[in-house]
Amino acid sequence: MKVRGAPAIGVSAAYGMALAALNNASLPIEALKEKLASASKLIGATRPTAVNLFWALKEMEKVWTASDDPATVVEEMVKRAQEIAAEDENMCKAIGRHGAALVPDNARILTHCNAGALATADYGTALGVIRAAFEDGKVKMVWADETRPFLQGARLTAWELHKDNIPVRLICDNMAGHFMQRGQIDMAVVGADRITANGDVANKIGTYSVAVLCKEHNIPFYVAAPYSTIDLNLHDGQDIPIEERKAEELTTMAGKRIAPEGIEVANPAFDVTPARLITAIITEKGVFRPPFDFSKVLEQK
Amino acid sequence: MKVRGAPAIGVSAAYGMALAALNNASLPIEALKEKLASASKLIGATRPTAVNLFWALKEMEKVWTASDDPATVVEEMVKRAQEIAAEDENMCKAIGRHGAALVPDNARILTHCNAGALATADYGTALGVIRAAFEDGKVKMVWADETRPFLQGARLTAWELHKDNIPVRLICDNMAGHFMQRGQIDMAVVGADRITANGDVANKIGTYSVAVLCKEHNIPFYVAAPYSTIDLNLHDGQDIPIEERKAEELTTMAGKRIAPEGIEVANPAFDVTPARLITAIITEKGVFRPPFDFSKVLEQK
Repeated sequence: MKVRGAPAIGVSAAYGMALAALNNASLPIEALKEKLASASKLIGATRPTAVNLFWALKEMEKVWTASDDPATVVEEMVKRAQEIAAEDENMCKAIGRHGAALVPDNARILTHCNAGALATADYGTALGVIRAAFEDGKVKMVWADETRPFLQGARLTAWELHKDNIPVRLICDNMAGHFMQRGQIDMAVVGADRITANGDVANKIGTYSVAVLCKEHNIPFYVAAPYSTIDLNLHDGQDIPIEERKAEELTTMAGKRIAPEGIEVANPAFDVTPARLITAIITEKGVFRPPFDFSKVLEQK
Repeated sequence: MKVRGAPAIGVSAAYGMALAALNNASLPIEALKEKLASASKLIGATRPTAVNLFWALKEMEKVWTASDDPATVVEEMVKRAQEIAAEDENMCKAIGRHGAALVPDNARILTHCNAGALATADYGTALGVIRAAFEDGKVKMVWADETRPFLQGARLTAWELHKDNIPVRLICDNMAGHFMQRGQIDMAVVGADRITANGDVANKIGTYSVAVLCKEHNIPFYVAAPYSTIDLNLHDGQDIPIEERKAEELTTMAGKRIAPEGIEVANPAFDVTPARLITAIITEKGVFRPPFDFSKVLEQK
């Protein structure tokens, strides 16, 4: 959890592979490729839910399988990692532009977790939409769910937006429904860790509850994510592995025990929001609406 | 917040008034009644949402307006406070009996906040239902929402149930929807701070979201509360004042800062669940189902 946010994980994986190449630059080509293969396996095992991780590893693999000259392999891998980081910033700005067009005037926008500059190389995906809409003068304020247990909303989203002078109000995850009921939330936008071919979205635990609450209150629910987050090999969200994290994230806070000893805990890191609850998925390639067909826009480009 | 839980607040208010009488037992009757009137006002101002508080203060007022002999007033007030505490235990056991009949076999029950022995004089309301159903061999396990920001679920409910050997699993508030989606929750039962004539329920913040999620998943949503929680003077939940609590409950944890400085916070202590989301309200007088008519059962008794 040192690196978090699907896009940031992809960029880190690319740099990690570039580093593995640099560290083994003096080896003969077979040994170098062996090292790269095992580094790729190791990095791939860290976060089973993050499709960007596998996308970045695949991109890097294309580079190191394309040449049998160690120096070329190393040089091209470093170049590709730098490209991936630069592409990430451009991509987030494109997501922001596409998403800002969907934001109404004087919008009071709810977000969950952190899909911001701290989760991407820069600018953010969900927060990219908010930033771009704010630049267009459309954002009245942002509601930030604190996002238990890891508090990414309190620690990261609130901090990022406050620093950028975007009005933000921090709430507990269980308060969003109350403010929807009172007519104080106009839309929700979140990131995604993985999107399946049918439009189901795996994202930080609690995202699904936000989507259900949006449906109940007729509030648009948007997902903003890089196109690379879409995993066309998975038909739907049933097949997405959900990472189960440590009990201590719930039972302790800032090193202090906040629950009794010996208590059983469940701590899934992600949940799956079914496509039917999603108003639109915003990517750098454009906006997709249900029924989701991600191949279509690809063909248009 | 030293005393919490609607029934416990009522019992405490009654004992508080008895104490005020004891402390002023030597005064002439007019001065004594002045002291009692101002004590009643002071106690009534502490928690504007708790109807049991006003009920208990009213009960005590009946006692001190019924006599003009200081010794009798003091003696009768102490007696009435003791009765209210004893009635509370009997009441919770009756709620438990009525509620247990609604619990299916092998039930996996979600609860939010703490409506247990720690919120009543004994046994609990929502947890009274769970305890009684567990005694009947019907409870497989209990899901306890941690209940941010004050963590009553983690600190109190999980502790109470664990101590009574009732299997309990602690989750963050934003995880309940995920486990409902996976078919792992059979029913939800919560307490209430105030119930209006039409069946709307004010309870700990987050209760409304649980009710919406139950509706989405076709899971029965029960409210367990003393009949005195019903405030027939309020037509619906629109009129219930919602206590706004300190920002520090969100921004600090165990004395440590967990959100950036200068961040705006919203912290409503309660929300209102509309009657249409409630499967039944369980009281010591019996079970009420929509459309709620609380006068009917009263007439039957």
